[in-house]
Amino acid sequence: MGADARIPVAIVGATGYVGAELLRWLIPHPGVRVVFTSSDQHQGKSLADVYPFLRGVIDATLVPHDAVAAAAAAEVVFLAVPHGTAVPLAEAALAAGRRVIDASADFRLKDPAVYARWYGTHAAPHLLPESVYGIPELYRDAIRSARLIAGPGCYPTGALLGLVPLARAGLVTDSVVIDAKSGTTGAGRSAKVEQLFAEVTENFRPYAIDAHRHAPEIEQELRAAGGKVTPVFVPHLLPVSRGILSTIYVSGKAAEADLGAIFEKAWGAEPFISLRGEGPPPELRDVRGTNRCAIGWRQSRAAGQAIIVTAIDNLAKGTSSQAVQCMNLVLGLPETTGLEAPALAP
Amino acid sequence: MGADARIPVAIVGATGYVGAELLRWLIPHPGVRVVFTSSDQHQGKSLADVYPFLRGVIDATLVPHDAVAAAAAAEVVFLAVPHGTAVPLAEAALAAGRRVIDASADFRLKDPAVYARWYGTHAAPHLLPESVYGIPELYRDAIRSARLIAGPGCYPTGALLGLVPLARAGLVTDSVVIDAKSGTTGAGRSAKVEQLFAEVTENFRPYAIDAHRHAPEIEQELRAAGGKVTPVFVPHLLPVSRGILSTIYVSGKAAEADLGAIFEKAWGAEPFISLRGEGPPPELRDVRGTNRCAIGWRQSRAAGQAIIVTAIDNLAKGTSSQAVQCMNLVLGLPETTGLEAPALAP
Amino acid sequence: MGADARIPVAIVGATGYVGAELLRWLIPHPGVRVVFTSSDQHQGKSLADVYPFLRGVIDATLVPHDAVAAAAAAEVVFLAVPHGTAVPLAEAALAAGRRVIDASADFRLKDPAVYARWYGTHAAPHLLPESVYGIPELYRDAIRSARLIAGPGCYPTGALLGLVPLARAGLVTDSVVIDAKSGTTGAGRSAKVEQLFAEVTENFRPYAIDAHRHAPEIEQELRAAGGKVTPVFVPHLLPVSRGILSTIYVSGKAAEADLGAIFEKAWGAEPFISLRGEGPPPELRDVRGTNRCAIGWRQSRAAGQAIIVTAIDNLAKGTSSQAVQCMNLVLGLPETTGLEAPALAP
Amino acid sequence: MGADARIPVAIVGATGYVGAELLRWLIPHPGVRVVFTSSDQHQGKSLADVYPFLRGVIDATLVPHDAVAAAAAAEVVFLAVPHGTAVPLAEAALAAGRRVIDASADFRLKDPAVYARWYGTHAAPHLLPESVYGIPELYRDAIRSARLIAGPGCYPTGALLGLVPLARAGLVTDSVVIDAKSGTTGAGRSAKVEQLFAEVTENFRPYAIDAHRHAPEIEQELRAAGGKVTPVFVPHLLPVSRGILSTIYVSGKAAEADLGAIFEKAWGAEPFISLRGEGPPPELRDVRGTNRCAIGWRQSRAAGQAIIVTAIDNLAKGTSSQAVQCMNLVLGLPETTGLEAPALAP
Repeated sequence: MGADARIPVAIVGATGYVGAELLRWLIPHPGVRVVFTSSDQHQGKSLADVYPFLRGVIDATLVPHDAVAAAAAAEVVFLAVPHGTAVPLAEAALAAGRRVIDASADFRLKDPAVYARWYGTHAAPHLLPESVYGIPELYRDAIRSARLIAGPGCYPTGALLGLVPLARAGLVTDSVVIDAKSGTTGAGRSAKVEQLFAEVTENFRPYAIDAHRHAPEIEQELRAAGGKVTPVFVPHLLPVSRGILSTIYVSGKAAEADLGAIFEKAWGAEPFISLRGEGPPPELRDVRGTNRCAIGWRQSRAAGQAIIVTAIDNLAKGTSSQAVQCMNLVLGLPETTGLEAPALAP
Repeated sequence: MGADARIPVAIVGATGYVGAELLRWLIPHPGVRVVFTSSDQHQGKSLADVYPFLRGVIDATLVPHDAVAAAAAAEVVFLAVPHGTAVPLAEAALAAGRRVIDASADFRLKDPAVYARWYGTHAAPHLLPESVYGIPELYRDAIRSARLIAGPGCYPTGALLGLVPLARAGLVTDSVVIDAKSGTTGAGRSAKVEQLFAEVTENFRPYAIDAHRHAPEIEQELRAAGGKVTPVFVPHLLPVSRGILSTIYVSGKAAEADLGAIFEKAWGAEPFISLRGEGPPPELRDVRGTNRCAIGWRQSRAAGQAIIVTAIDNLAKGTSSQAVQCMNLVLGLPETTGLEAPALAP
Repeated sequence: MGADARIPVAIVGATGYVGAELLRWLIPHPGVRVVFTSSDQHQGKSLADVYPFLRGVIDATLVPHDAVAAAAAAEVVFLAVPHGTAVPLAEAALAAGRRVIDASADFRLKDPAVYARWYGTHAAPHLLPESVYGIPELYRDAIRSARLIAGPGCYPTGALLGLVPLARAGLVTDSVVIDAKSGTTGAGRSAKVEQLFAEVTENFRPYAIDAHRHAPEIEQELRAAGGKVTPVFVPHLLPVSRGILSTIYVSGKAAEADLGAIFEKAWGAEPFISLRGEGPPPELRDVRGTNRCAIGWRQSRAAGQAIIVTAIDNLAKGTSSQAVQCMNLVLGLPETTGLEAPALAP
Repeated sequence: MGADARIPVAIVGATGYVGAELLRWLIPHPGVRVVFTSSDQHQGKSLADVYPFLRGVIDATLVPHDAVAAAAAAEVVFLAVPHGTAVPLAEAALAAGRRVIDASADFRLKDPAVYARWYGTHAAPHLLPESVYGIPELYRDAIRSARLIAGPGCYPTGALLGLVPLARAGLVTDSVVIDAKSGTTGAGRSAKVEQLFAEVTENFRPYAIDAHRHAPEIEQELRAAGGKVTPVFVPHLLPVSRGILSTIYVSGKAAEADLGAIFEKAWGAEPFISLRGEGPPPELRDVRGTNRCAIGWRQSRAAGQAIIVTAIDNLAKGTSSQAVQCMNLVLGLPETTGLEAPALAP
């Protein structure tokens, strides 16, 4: 047989939780091979030195972050680096003619002024108009032809898949509460006292109440879908490693609408959305280690509220496997390639 | 020295989570001694046979449930048995002239029709008018003289301590969402597949959405305090053993009210309520193993919502230590006696 | 395109942890398709009714346990039922000419008297001589042609992969201590108070000290490999869902032997054994969700002990994926087919 | 009534896990009051700023570490600072005539050469002869009159309470394996990637195999009690916050000795040791939040091994409450004062 027909891809930032999860999805992916992995912190080591469970699974040396080298080696460049640092890497890879899928926040917000308020001045605002928000269920066609894909935040993915169908149906007009609960990997793999095991186990707490950086992202996309209100967004830290469950309360007409028909119309054909309706509500384990989003709902006429529950794996559909789903679209591969593993449950 | 001056108390139902937690508070309590402990399931065994960690801490044999015997031995009879079964035990102990503190749902709902809808026909509706709802912060004086105290549900305790001050201030007029998250001990110590460790760890899920038995209890007391709306109540199961954190959203005027003044007026003098204001929000570990309730808040003008966060230990302030707080009032002891232990954190 | 070329397989007992884990491996397996799934408890329901996360992943109805029907539909019949009940099912499937892979203890012990001591009288002792102990690293050739494969216990898998190389090298002559720690799924998916989340979280305990049913199995295979001593085997219950870590102490000559050479010779070519030598010791997460066994070692000359550490996922290499590895051998497929997924870490 | 009769005590290093746990025991202690709390990292803040759950429980400002100031204010000075830094603080407090209880490793090892091998050169070796190893069950009388008490390591406490009775009986002559499993608080409250929640949950691993700093401490005290062998000591990291369970294997005569009589003679009168014999083995939750050590045993004649299991709370009997037990002796208070709380279980 001839040469390896798999398409080469690069991961800039391969040792954080997002980078390692990209590896988990890309290593067994039949259509691509990982040819570039970088880490400024661990450069010179092998991946197996950092993650012993990768010994025998992938043989790769970590080089310094270098978008030019990544672009020289690969068709698609994944960026899994902190916001702010992704901008110059994206520019360089784009200049080299490569497609870029960025997992950071750098290209999500369309309005540079909003970006500035939450993250600081944007270093390449000219790229914002062309970046495509990387939720395939919302922007599938645009993703196919995009040069630059802004991987969405994990919280926004869970919130928007539950809210956009209602917004499109004109039902987001009164008040919206997003009470979201996330596992700890959402905070990344950096040493912080408040993320120590002994601080998190048997504990639970809200944080960044009505003040989280994912709020403007949710609001931007909710308005783009026809939403008319500013949601309240309250994230909480769960003592689990993976998963986001969002309990969403929409007051007003949504309490009496035909939610089944609305969700069926919006997501009925989607391969990675599992509609639960009024059956057993979604749980984190339903989606653990998968690219799926499970969605259920109830309505309280007495209280005038529709209650939408969505569950995703923050590292998978919330970040890395959704980025691979985008990559499949970009490369013209079947969208579900390499993404159909069942949940790891229990 | 003379005879033991400590007042004798009885626990009917000493081996479930609530009964064992009553023991944890009552054994070191300087004002009382536990003279009666019963268990239908484990009768004839010693407490140390069931709970090895009680060996050397208390020496007691488990007898069958028997309110007459309990009443003969003790001044105060705690009932920690399933709802329905508490009614005849309470009747018998009251008939013997004892004070009864019931941890079940049997005497919480004032309206027998509401009780019937959620639990079945009540067997002694004539007792409902005199039972006092056992949250000292709400009904301190009535508790002092009550014969029959209805220990409140764990979820209602957390929700009401956050909402009653607003209801009294006329701020509960629009919509109220109670998004509550509880540890697993709230479900009791009975064998169920969905409560197995492997089903709960690294998992999280809502349940009984807008359909939980604690909803009518919250509504009853919220209306008694001046609330004008039916709250939405959505409980969730956390992978922790103890604790309830409630995130409460109140829309309307509450978003712009002076919450600090309202809470200070309501709870400023309460020994077991810790007001956090807009500082670091309450966490479960802040109250783990304690009789305290921590309360914090934020306001979102953009979304027109006040956000109240309360944290309690469901087995302590949510059930057993709150029952001991009631007992202190009943016996004329200082209310804080035996209840001041700091949190077990981490 | 023509008919589905994938080989039909059956799972008798598809809703326990072992059966569900078989599904997790077999559904995406490219060489087989699951055509039969049974559950006495849930018969008539769909798999998705029992496990919502399988909705959209597999469409199957649960029928009663029936080895004849399973054998009529499939080439290979997996049995994932309690010990004792596997015997008649195996007999029937064998009589129908099918290959049987049994996950229970029924065909592991060669000596019916030993079986009787630990499990009760064996109902088909005539089958014991032909059953093959299903660890491919030990009995690969025999498995290829076996009609009846006895899937090994989870603890024995972890212990034997660490000890057999030493036994074969004549180093198991003095004393052996196996201190093993397992996740809770090893106890199966049945409701027991001692397996409730609140009983297990933040807890840890030994059980069945020197009295566990897996001890005779370890001893049988250790002696078959040349071991000369009776090990002490002490299992412990970890507050994790999956995984067994075994810390094994071998006194005597092993403390000064060339363990690197011994393990390299024994397992150097094995696709599912990851030798860690004296580097960072194995951890549970290294093998979580995988068919791999990680092995490390140290030697204490001062104490005259070799210390071997092995880690497996009890539901995967310890049971279900190892059964699939055996199936690959039975069906003449490449041994690693469908088994190469990286670990789910974190 | 007159002035507060409680004896003033000081905590140098009040915000690490050991310091915070000292507060948890000392705040409700009836015989003492905490008059000095220091933290170099958080100086100037209140304790409640660092630990919100202490708001309303203790009102104290954190000052810089200063043994002279601590000694001026208090009768007993607790040191809860890193090893190495405790030496000068201890010297200063002793010079001021105060009694010192040090929780670090600085005064545990009697031989400066052994200290140097594990921790570096000792800065005050002249103090080593007079320091008393702070396990009251071993050195009660010496502790009563000691100026300087070396709080023992958490692992050694668990190991020695299980092994010393055997060593004194002449049964530690062959080989000893100590397989110990600890919660994460043993590593202290400093930010490290390997202690992040997502790295620890659902994981388990050995570390510092036969190379842990607590090994020489165990060996010193085991030999002092008559032990004749070097134990193998292998610590493991459990996904729990608190607790150490040690499974100890003693080969040789111990396998057939009358362990019940030996332990009864050694610890039968001890208020904080719970002998379990051959009953249900100790579990971590049995001792969670308590000053107790639970000890059980089994014997395997076939394998020639005695198996001893001990359980302690590493932050309590393993460190802080044991230090309070020593303080009670030093101050002439009843030894159990303030130390009798039942376990927090579940």
